[in-house]
Amino acid sequence: MTPPKPAIVLVEPQLGDNIGMVARAMANFGLSDLRLVTPRDGWPNERARATASKADHVIDAARVYDDLASAIADLNFVLATTARQRDGHKEVLGPVEACQRIGTLGEGGSRSGILFGRERWGLENEEIGQADAIVTFPVDPAFASLNIAQAVLLMAYELSRGRSAQTNFSAPEREPAQKQVLNAMFDWLEPALDQRGYFRTEQKKPKMMENLRAVLTRPGFSADEIAVLRGVFTALDRFRPRKTQSEGDDR
Amino acid sequence: MTPPKPAIVLVEPQLGDNIGMVARAMANFGLSDLRLVTPRDGWPNERARATASKADHVIDAARVYDDLASAIADLNFVLATTARQRDGHKEVLGPVEACQRIGTLGEGGSRSGILFGRERWGLENEEIGQADAIVTFPVDPAFASLNIAQAVLLMAYELSRGRSAQTNFSAPEREPAQKQVLNAMFDWLEPALDQRGYFRTEQKKPKMMENLRAVLTRPGFSADEIAVLRGVFTALDRFRPRKTQSEGDDR
Repeated sequence: MTPPKPAIVLVEPQLGDNIGMVARAMANFGLSDLRLVTPRDGWPNERARATASKADHVIDAARVYDDLASAIADLNFVLATTARQRDGHKEVLGPVEACQRIGTLGEGGSRSGILFGRERWGLENEEIGQADAIVTFPVDPAFASLNIAQAVLLMAYELSRGRSAQTNFSAPEREPAQKQVLNAMFDWLEPALDQRGYFRTEQKKPKMMENLRAVLTRPGFSADEIAVLRGVFTALDRFRPRKTQSEGDDR
Repeated sequence: MTPPKPAIVLVEPQLGDNIGMVARAMANFGLSDLRLVTPRDGWPNERARATASKADHVIDAARVYDDLASAIADLNFVLATTARQRDGHKEVLGPVEACQRIGTLGEGGSRSGILFGRERWGLENEEIGQADAIVTFPVDPAFASLNIAQAVLLMAYELSRGRSAQTNFSAPEREPAQKQVLNAMFDWLEPALDQRGYFRTEQKKPKMMENLRAVLTRPGFSADEIAVLRGVFTALDRFRPRKTQSEGDDR
């Protein structure tokens, strides 16, 4: 059983556009429980649907409440987001710790919710008082200006980041070539360069060859990549330029 | 000394509003190097300033470039953001690993940048080809719909999260070359190969060049390593084999 995902609770949101952007942010990271406390422009709201992109399922399932207490009645753990720290007795968490707390509680079956305030002035003290803890974002204090959709996006991302901490992104399928493939390239390259006086003197040759080996070994080229490289070397080596170099330079 | 923070590179952004929202997202997490490759509606853009909230310093400092190569010329490590995984030789990272990589390289003094594509269709394959690796966000596959400002916000957050998480990665001794060094090699290689019929047909050329770019970009070669490679290419290219010199090559 997967732990329940937190509810996103918007307290008196003012603009339908922002509600839509919140739904879109949620949908990107797999959240779907959207709760609205007395949205200013009523509900349903066409602007919200328009800006939600394709997050219709979030918009359709959104529930409207007359007050905050009813909106969070079934939740076990509630966080209030604020732009700045407030004084008071509330514990203040960063998004990382907040999402860890939600995850841990969720494993025990607890339901969580995150409150976001009005666009203009955020949450009232009385509303913050209904939460268990405060979350603030680690924004540059000289420029703190996240709108609610951005704040929801960051929390949704951090929640998903915590859940998927184990997911390993597709490692590239690139497997370094067997050493014999790499060495065959060097075996070809050395006499080709030698014939052209690349090594200047016999004394310099071991060191230069060592350098060249280091450069072409370090990347851990795959067999496919080495094939591409050999194609380039061969082309430069075998064929004479169709035009002379000086004529060619003008393209 | 704090490591340099990455540049945010928007490739042909279409809407000024989105550029403004990107600037705002950056400012929240202390990023300030915004680069625009041929923004559709020109620059400066009043819509961008209006939606940037108070992030005027980011908007004012934004630089405009005629092409992607110039925009990333001074960077050592470049990531391309894409909505979906692509096939090919590029390594695919999640935001966590991507930001760790940027942090580690930054401690060695390397400069990084992150590419974000057009609102409509993202980045072209050729553009992705100029990056060292791909970043994709761990969004719900059933609903993947992040706009560029949201994608920038998440990367900026993750970067800041990583910086504050007391990274103890050791800096690699090898610093990837600036992109202009790598690109100069391709600029030399392409006509040299072309003159020899390496590409066979004009139709095959873009794909073959893209492959070659992928193979030689993936290792993150340092400037020293690229110098060694160019020495090899030049030797194969310029000098005739000593053996055949007497054989009446008509060059």
